[in-house]
Amino acid sequence: MNLDRMRHSFEELAKFTDKGEGINRLAYTEMERNARLYMIEQLELAGLMVRTDYAGNVIARREGTAPDLPVVATGSHIDSVYAAGEFDGTAGVLVALEIMRSLQDEEISTEHPLEVIIFACEESSRFGASTLGSKAMTGRLDPAYTRSLTDKNGVTLMQAFEENGLDLEEVHLAKRFRDEIKAFVELHVEQGPVLEKQGVAVGIVSAIAAPIRFHVHVEGTADHSGTTPMDYRRDALLGAAEIALSVERAAIEELAHGTVGTVGVFAIQPGAMNVVPGLAEMDVDIRGTSLASRERVVKALEQALEDVKKARGLDIWMEEISSETPVEMDPAIVADLQAVCEQQNIKWITMPSGAGHDAMNMASLCPTSMIFVPSKNGLSHNPAEYTSLEGLMEGAEVLRAFLLKQAQVVNE
Amino acid sequence: MNLDRMRHSFEELAKFTDKGEGINRLAYTEMERNARLYMIEQLELAGLMVRTDYAGNVIARREGTAPDLPVVATGSHIDSVYAAGEFDGTAGVLVALEIMRSLQDEEISTEHPLEVIIFACEESSRFGASTLGSKAMTGRLDPAYTRSLTDKNGVTLMQAFEENGLDLEEVHLAKRFRDEIKAFVELHVEQGPVLEKQGVAVGIVSAIAAPIRFHVHVEGTADHSGTTPMDYRRDALLGAAEIALSVERAAIEELAHGTVGTVGVFAIQPGAMNVVPGLAEMDVDIRGTSLASRERVVKALEQALEDVKKARGLDIWMEEISSETPVEMDPAIVADLQAVCEQQNIKWITMPSGAGHDAMNMASLCPTSMIFVPSKNGLSHNPAEYTSLEGLMEGAEVLRAFLLKQAQVVNE
Repeated sequence: MNLDRMRHSFEELAKFTDKGEGINRLAYTEMERNARLYMIEQLELAGLMVRTDYAGNVIARREGTAPDLPVVATGSHIDSVYAAGEFDGTAGVLVALEIMRSLQDEEISTEHPLEVIIFACEESSRFGASTLGSKAMTGRLDPAYTRSLTDKNGVTLMQAFEENGLDLEEVHLAKRFRDEIKAFVELHVEQGPVLEKQGVAVGIVSAIAAPIRFHVHVEGTADHSGTTPMDYRRDALLGAAEIALSVERAAIEELAHGTVGTVGVFAIQPGAMNVVPGLAEMDVDIRGTSLASRERVVKALEQALEDVKKARGLDIWMEEISSETPVEMDPAIVADLQAVCEQQNIKWITMPSGAGHDAMNMASLCPTSMIFVPSKNGLSHNPAEYTSLEGLMEGAEVLRAFLLKQAQVVNE
Repeated sequence: MNLDRMRHSFEELAKFTDKGEGINRLAYTEMERNARLYMIEQLELAGLMVRTDYAGNVIARREGTAPDLPVVATGSHIDSVYAAGEFDGTAGVLVALEIMRSLQDEEISTEHPLEVIIFACEESSRFGASTLGSKAMTGRLDPAYTRSLTDKNGVTLMQAFEENGLDLEEVHLAKRFRDEIKAFVELHVEQGPVLEKQGVAVGIVSAIAAPIRFHVHVEGTADHSGTTPMDYRRDALLGAAEIALSVERAAIEELAHGTVGTVGVFAIQPGAMNVVPGLAEMDVDIRGTSLASRERVVKALEQALEDVKKARGLDIWMEEISSETPVEMDPAIVADLQAVCEQQNIKWITMPSGAGHDAMNMASLCPTSMIFVPSKNGLSHNPAEYTSLEGLMEGAEVLRAFLLKQAQVVNE
């Protein structure tokens, strides 16, 4: 593989961005379409046959010596959030391209066909819905839901499809079948601090965490802060503060399971210097790869509500906003990736993914896992997002070796 | 005294309100001027000589048989906040009027002259500055500061003075002298829950608390809530939550001193479901009548900042916004009021005032205290503010007896 060639690809792809800080290449926009056409051209030049499916996913096939065997696939996405960095999604796509170029350079043939997939609309920034392409590919897209989606300018997903020569009414035809794909592995930047802090080159993803989310209301009394003695107060802020700290304590107890609990939204009313807060509202996000562990944190949250309600005489209630199910990665694929790392003498750990990815949907279709590479300072969805190309190359070596092992090289 | 006559006065005075929910009679507006003219008329009908001073304070004098003796004074204010109730300020003024009417009915003469004062601009709602009238009367008004004051429509205090036939350049002439006033007692609704909860008719104010205020910044790191393990986080919300709870704990330890600590303003950033809060900002208000007690809570706040900074690796700093000095009420006046309650068989407690009042300024000029009457649910600055007229009448009995004792009845 050629690091300079890969760097050049990063530079070229980064040019496809709408104005604004960082990368702005939102799903199904003209800019993203142009980036996709650029990628199709590069993949064709690398000897792949490329088609676009009914959801706008790009599927590039490198034929195998036994074309009827299921394909071994990799890929990620090139759409971005607003003010994104250059690596989220793009890293997995450009590493795949570089691997295909290297196989072409070295004239390596495989028994199974190989595939590079560029998933459409992974980010939720435009339509408020994520991983639309991989959902379509795995038959998980709800037609009524997709017809309701609109971006902030009032453009419907249906119109966006039309602008891309697609028909939302036909999106179900993007669904693929179980025996089409032997394995899928997505390389992605970690978007967290673990690999960097532990000084490890590669994370092999064992499971993708899923959140359960709650909205918590804490209602007290908005009294005058000067005239209301401490023992006559029903301070909603203080009750909410105790609940937030309980979530943290419960999640820390689940450290071994990697479960996390976060109060990311927290607001009080009326919010005046001389008024005891009468209302606090917060959103709690609890996620993990172990449902049992996640449930223990939820139970601790419920207990905190009861305890604080009793101790402070506050009115407290919560409602579940959403609940998704964690996705296990395929143990055999994980073991294969670990073996490859050992062979290549690359430092690795097995870890969960705290964020969602297209691999989460692909796991319902075929044996799936992911390779993480370090993110500088754990930053992502940010122009300062950074992964060194040298670090990326270590992940690329693992991915290439894995793909070749799965697809079985015939002429080495 | 005549409860029905007093009720009628409340009904009449409540008619002087600008549109909006509740009472809207902001300082130095045309509506407040009309209310003042109505009160002047009523005071004159009750046999008092009325003048308006250089600050717009109304000073109504009931002559004594020894006109050269210092006056015994009572009073409060009739300006209001936005969407006010009918009792804050008004209660003290209309009780004073009813007392004067009753003395006229009963043809009671006193050796010392009596005075009813209606202070101008007690509320800060219009110009962001409170107790302007009593500050002027006690020589505590900073001329440069008053010239800088503007309401939300851009009307300067200077213009408002002109509209009332006053000249801000002459406001210093409103200052009165130490030997003019023998005693001042203001009757006011409590604006807190203590009297109602304790089932007591009258609170005798021993001191007026004053706040020290701080702005606290807590800075952490805004990480992805899914990909950042619990032990890699610098969560600003959780640090701020611990600090807020520390303020509460420290204030509860000072319960015997009546010191209170409140975090009334609390906001986090970025405030997104899937982002660990990177910044929390809060305003802390600590107030009490004992500077030593208040200082212990401040010390506990400072210690909490240090502890949380160390334990969580957050960047935390605070700045003092303001610091005022508590005001002691005159012990002899307090003792006199207590004696009057005992004589009248009225249930009383001695208590601090958590809110500021004109009496706070008057205390620098003459022996001063206050009489509190119960506020339903402790509510104030709210259309639902309520004090029963029967409850008010108990406070009125105490005030009348006190005024007569101080002024020395000559013909009973």
